[in-house]
Amino acid sequence: MTGRRGRPDEAGLIARFFRPLATAPGAALLLDDAATIPPAFGKDLVVTVDAIVAGVHFFPDDPPDAIARKALRVNLSDLAAKGAQPAGYLVTLALPDDWETDWLEGFVEGLAIDQEEFGLSLLGGDTVRTPGPLMVSITAFGHAPEGQAPRRTGAAPGQRLYVSGTIGDAALGLKLRLDERLAALWDLRRAEKETLLDRYLLPEPRLALAGVVATYATASMDVSDGLVGDLGKLAAASKVGAVIDAGRVPLSAAAFRATRVDPAAFATALTGGDDYEILVAIEPEDAEAFESEAAAAGVRVTDIGVLIEGEGVGVERHGRPVMLGDESFSHF
Amino acid sequence: MTGRRGRPDEAGLIARFFRPLATAPGAALLLDDAATIPPAFGKDLVVTVDAIVAGVHFFPDDPPDAIARKALRVNLSDLAAKGAQPAGYLVTLALPDDWETDWLEGFVEGLAIDQEEFGLSLLGGDTVRTPGPLMVSITAFGHAPEGQAPRRTGAAPGQRLYVSGTIGDAALGLKLRLDERLAALWDLRRAEKETLLDRYLLPEPRLALAGVVATYATASMDVSDGLVGDLGKLAAASKVGAVIDAGRVPLSAAAFRATRVDPAAFATALTGGDDYEILVAIEPEDAEAFESEAAAAGVRVTDIGVLIEGEGVGVERHGRPVMLGDESFSHF
Repeated sequence: MTGRRGRPDEAGLIARFFRPLATAPGAALLLDDAATIPPAFGKDLVVTVDAIVAGVHFFPDDPPDAIARKALRVNLSDLAAKGAQPAGYLVTLALPDDWETDWLEGFVEGLAIDQEEFGLSLLGGDTVRTPGPLMVSITAFGHAPEGQAPRRTGAAPGQRLYVSGTIGDAALGLKLRLDERLAALWDLRRAEKETLLDRYLLPEPRLALAGVVATYATASMDVSDGLVGDLGKLAAASKVGAVIDAGRVPLSAAAFRATRVDPAAFATALTGGDDYEILVAIEPEDAEAFESEAAAAGVRVTDIGVLIEGEGVGVERHGRPVMLGDESFSHF
Repeated sequence: MTGRRGRPDEAGLIARFFRPLATAPGAALLLDDAATIPPAFGKDLVVTVDAIVAGVHFFPDDPPDAIARKALRVNLSDLAAKGAQPAGYLVTLALPDDWETDWLEGFVEGLAIDQEEFGLSLLGGDTVRTPGPLMVSITAFGHAPEGQAPRRTGAAPGQRLYVSGTIGDAALGLKLRLDERLAALWDLRRAEKETLLDRYLLPEPRLALAGVVATYATASMDVSDGLVGDLGKLAAASKVGAVIDAGRVPLSAAAFRATRVDPAAFATALTGGDDYEILVAIEPEDAEAFESEAAAAGVRVTDIGVLIEGEGVGVERHGRPVMLGDESFSHF
């Protein structure tokens, strides 16, 4: 069961590192070719896949547990946006030849923590070696009420736009990660700097909001490539336009401080990526119920604007357009 | 919608190349964060993922349509082994920066051909760039009768062992690919050489056998890492031993010719990888029905041995042990 330099081969690696994560019966202890997911009456299965590559989507020297959790959480964020409760996931791990046991232990520990937190089981996966960088691709499964998973396509003029949490922290955190001097420029306190860096390292999937989203959202998506750009995608899919009130976009204390002194930071906040917040369209008559049920679920939601006839996304402050430069950040 | 050197960005790439493959309603034309699979009454969803890496699992200069089809088919083979009919799949494609439009067109064409042949739809995916080699990870979904997907664990002493198709062609094809001179050593005709090379390039998932497998197999897996090694996994999972009659292992005319003159070729055939045939355990009283229904499904199956008390895998010829060197071929 051991390969080069005393490290386990694939079967040994699965047994040692991944089997403890396979808690669902359908995972068959990872001893099989495939997993099974039993039928859930009245539920659609929602499936999503996202991959992250070292040096492209995360820093190779990020802690391995954070890499694992980010890989899982970006998928859980998609489930939340579709109103789905997570059921399980598959991991494809492409490991460079120089992988270390300690690293993999940290990686698996990260998955274990998040499985526990979000209530899901590893169902299977594939481990391959690569002469290239580390890559993690995760397929996540969830259940949503049949026919009720909100798409990007249901938004209509007159509906309100809401986002969860705060916007821009992760994008500002990435900038800080790349240039520490920005902390001084932005006049950040130590804890504020840490907040921004953490938001980039570890997204917070809004699964607590999934049920509320399934009930009320006419259209929904997660904000992963920047609020303005992603709203543009939702608006285009729904064949409507959108107007955001810049003054209502929810900012953390750290982001607020940065944007107050640096206009470029405001553009970064609204167009940068990695928020992993939920963006939804809500009928005006449902707004109060949506807000109150979101609050009951423990997630802050903020009305940031409105959908209109037409196309494109406008960002306004006191009724005047705000220019943000490039609209969208793309990982590709 | 275009990035560097006039090539499409991710959204443009999805629209141009992948959207035509997304024929299922749940794929939402790949315009959403996630896909949905509606509940199927009385069916388990069977899920599997396999990744292939350029230079590890295929040759970088293989035709792009063959790479795509292999990536899909290795997963369909897992579904067949679990008695499942395919429903859809997700693709994660890690593209090196120097990808070419022609290459991607060929890749997508390969997927289109196999979707048509095997009756499934692209449901979603993720495209990322990588500084490393091309990698394709596919997650495939299928439906099997609820609770009836055969595992590796149900085999018992006295049951018969069957394999579909012929064994060893792909492993011999890989040897030929690496050393063309073997064609002369093995005294192969031109068509035989092509047969072996093709079997390595393009596996044949035995989906026609899925229903019969779900009905009759007490244990089942696909043979991807070599017959002897994979049988060892099935036997270990079922806590039994197994004996193969070497003379009954089904060989193609090409493999038969090679093994007749080269004993090492016989070891390669029984222990090499990439067969993607189905290995099942069948109750003796079901053997006749299994054989006749497999024949009706158009798939040849061959009784190659028996499960016994104990552990491990023996290979015998005329009742005497045959030595094969390394038991199993592992991609890892």
